[in-house]
Amino acid sequence: MGIVKPTTLSGFMELLPQNQMQLDRLIDTLKNTYALYGFAPLDTPIIESAEVLLAKGGGETEKQIYRLTKGDSELALRFDLTVPLAKFTAANYGSLSFPFRRYQIGKVYRGERAQRGRFREFYQADIDIIGDEKLDIMNDAEIPSIIYRSFKALGLSNFVIKINNRKLLAGFFEMIGKGESSAEILRAIDKCDKIGIEKVKEQLIKEGLDDKISDKLISFITFKGTNPEKLAYLKEINESNELFTEGINELCAIAEHMHSFGVPEEYFEIDFSIARGLDYYTGTVYETIIKNHPEIGSVCSGGRYDDLAGYYTNKKLPGVGISVGVTRLFYVLSEQNMIQSTGATAPADVIIIPMTEDFAPAVSAANELRNLSIRTQLYTEKKKFKARLSYADKLNIPFVILIGEDEIKSGKYTLKNMKDGSQSLLSLEEAASLITEFTKKESQISLICENTEGK
Amino acid sequence: MGIVKPTTLSGFMELLPQNQMQLDRLIDTLKNTYALYGFAPLDTPIIESAEVLLAKGGGETEKQIYRLTKGDSELALRFDLTVPLAKFTAANYGSLSFPFRRYQIGKVYRGERAQRGRFREFYQADIDIIGDEKLDIMNDAEIPSIIYRSFKALGLSNFVIKINNRKLLAGFFEMIGKGESSAEILRAIDKCDKIGIEKVKEQLIKEGLDDKISDKLISFITFKGTNPEKLAYLKEINESNELFTEGINELCAIAEHMHSFGVPEEYFEIDFSIARGLDYYTGTVYETIIKNHPEIGSVCSGGRYDDLAGYYTNKKLPGVGISVGVTRLFYVLSEQNMIQSTGATAPADVIIIPMTEDFAPAVSAANELRNLSIRTQLYTEKKKFKARLSYADKLNIPFVILIGEDEIKSGKYTLKNMKDGSQSLLSLEEAASLITEFTKKESQISLICENTEGK
Repeated sequence: MGIVKPTTLSGFMELLPQNQMQLDRLIDTLKNTYALYGFAPLDTPIIESAEVLLAKGGGETEKQIYRLTKGDSELALRFDLTVPLAKFTAANYGSLSFPFRRYQIGKVYRGERAQRGRFREFYQADIDIIGDEKLDIMNDAEIPSIIYRSFKALGLSNFVIKINNRKLLAGFFEMIGKGESSAEILRAIDKCDKIGIEKVKEQLIKEGLDDKISDKLISFITFKGTNPEKLAYLKEINESNELFTEGINELCAIAEHMHSFGVPEEYFEIDFSIARGLDYYTGTVYETIIKNHPEIGSVCSGGRYDDLAGYYTNKKLPGVGISVGVTRLFYVLSEQNMIQSTGATAPADVIIIPMTEDFAPAVSAANELRNLSIRTQLYTEKKKFKARLSYADKLNIPFVILIGEDEIKSGKYTLKNMKDGSQSLLSLEEAASLITEFTKKESQISLICENTEGK
Repeated sequence: MGIVKPTTLSGFMELLPQNQMQLDRLIDTLKNTYALYGFAPLDTPIIESAEVLLAKGGGETEKQIYRLTKGDSELALRFDLTVPLAKFTAANYGSLSFPFRRYQIGKVYRGERAQRGRFREFYQADIDIIGDEKLDIMNDAEIPSIIYRSFKALGLSNFVIKINNRKLLAGFFEMIGKGESSAEILRAIDKCDKIGIEKVKEQLIKEGLDDKISDKLISFITFKGTNPEKLAYLKEINESNELFTEGINELCAIAEHMHSFGVPEEYFEIDFSIARGLDYYTGTVYETIIKNHPEIGSVCSGGRYDDLAGYYTNKKLPGVGISVGVTRLFYVLSEQNMIQSTGATAPADVIIIPMTEDFAPAVSAANELRNLSIRTQLYTEKKKFKARLSYADKLNIPFVILIGEDEIKSGKYTLKNMKDGSQSLLSLEEAASLITEFTKKESQISLICENTEGK
């Protein structure tokens, strides 16, 4: 029989168990935080009809899409979670209650050029709040608090949520007489972080802005100050432009509530240069930067859009949402050595090694520990004692319970702590509470450690 | 702009939020139970190279597979979780510790003919224990206890785990002089439940067995009795056949430990007619039947195989595993009205409705409740009071907190119980503990209710 080489496609993340447990913990943390804000889970198919998925069509997306045919049907794999949400909301409009708050954490597919750190299959973790006709600005104000709580729960504390409003940019363009060509100007501004101010100015001039107006635009988007200073500045430069005024009011409403939402001042920064490339944003836009690692780019972005599902329904469904690129985030944090391997990354809390011919006492002990919610592995392979311990050690399992004749007679079991090598003779109940206490403590160690020195 | 009809492909399950929460709960219950036995999570790509995925090739599977092309690469979507496990284990042999215990819960794809209750995209929930060269029979004995604990945790109590050993069947075939043609005979036996004994006999005769031998085989596979009686019967009819003897020993070893593993006698049944269609099983085989609904067929099946990854490596990797067809199980339980809608199927535990212009006190209250792990939705849309309450009601949210001027002044909030309509004035802490107590109680209500009358 010929052997086929067991390879995994490039651009597809496939992790060893310990790393998979880390990724699962990242995903669970996001899920649990999202759920705290009243979002319901959604799980749409990975395959959709190509017509539905590409209703909007065009652009880079279409080139990257994975297409397939089954019978007569032209199918495609989803490339984001927003299009399936639009389809779902339009299709189930009558059965949903609005605002419809949903989270979805799932894999999406983009056939990008394979590149280190770029993935063709990756998890996105999205939340969106969809209104029927209208959606209050308070929903936009709640989003930064969800980002804040999520990243805090992951163990990050050195990050900042940047916020802007598209209406400010659009209004500003109108005020400088460039309302019509705003899409290209937006794209130039969006590159601000990547290419620097000088290059942005070059592009602005290429777009037909003169030197003076370019400088005016640049001095706007680079305005420095505290959040209140920035809001005051906006009011100062407003030439009673309608859009600009709306932008100011929306940004003020959001800033006003940050404190009540529990987001400390230093985690929230108004930044007039945030534009977001995607063209469907129409109001608030968000980006999240890890301060020590700005090179990673935004780890959580999103914004407000006027019309979620215009391709599928005549109902007007405005919304606001954010997305975390989970796979890429996990990859860069791992690269930076910021993911902790302590804290629940072993497949079991304890391993039971029977030292007698009769396995029954060991089996019963395992069963009892599982009844107490302790993740227990029973090791019954016929191996040398040393090999058994080394198995536990390699899997990072913190405790071993040895069950031999003496243990069975006395009802006291040898509990070995694999970290410090200490051993104690304990009843099963005593061992159980010691293990539970330990795993409880371990589970409180955060997934991400910012200070990589301290690891 | 043209409107595209927002449809979902047939054979693809897409649930409304409340049902999605039920399915998520089913999946979480399986995951948590699997984790209790020391299984580590694995998450393989949904897309693999067609060469890798079809290394074994042939058969029904190949016809049902979803294929796609990207550049020069022939790709395919995984159709089960066993082939990716084989690939992964072979590829990462040097980095894994054996026995390698992994669970994987993920979507798989089969382009079956669309049919009510048949899905083209469906979740499987698998566990497997893979040995290096050898794997102790105790692992086979542990599997029924995992099935038992999983289904109990879901709320089922009226089910039975049926167990057999392929070596018994193979040995029996040898004893009746039909060792070579056993594959066809196995397939005939496998249909026993579906087509009845009469038809099986017809098929056996078609396969070249004479009347007497057919009757002998049928009297073997239909032997009735308690588990000890069945084991005694095996020893009685054994003609010192090597395979048959191995089968007896393995089955005895498993039966011996059921009590220590915590599986009550009535949940475990030796059944000589269990064959399992798949040809890679070589020893123990399992099926799980819901007693009131035998028409559903086996809801959890699996077995022992000698050689997991022979297509990818020369290493001999024996294993034992089981699989739950999650999507189909969820579908049939829903059809039978056996899934409970109580118990954590609302997107939030409480909804806060501000009754004042200033939202700050309501926002702070929401933030505080979330700090206490209470899933809290803030409702800020400008709607009539009745519409707000009806929103909470439709989403099945059990509590509403109203925050008006009086509440803010007194620090006592109106907590409305949406089920019984009762209202009480409470401090936020008092409200929080009442809500927590309620949700804790709700979460203990099992997902599945066997007595559909009692709903």
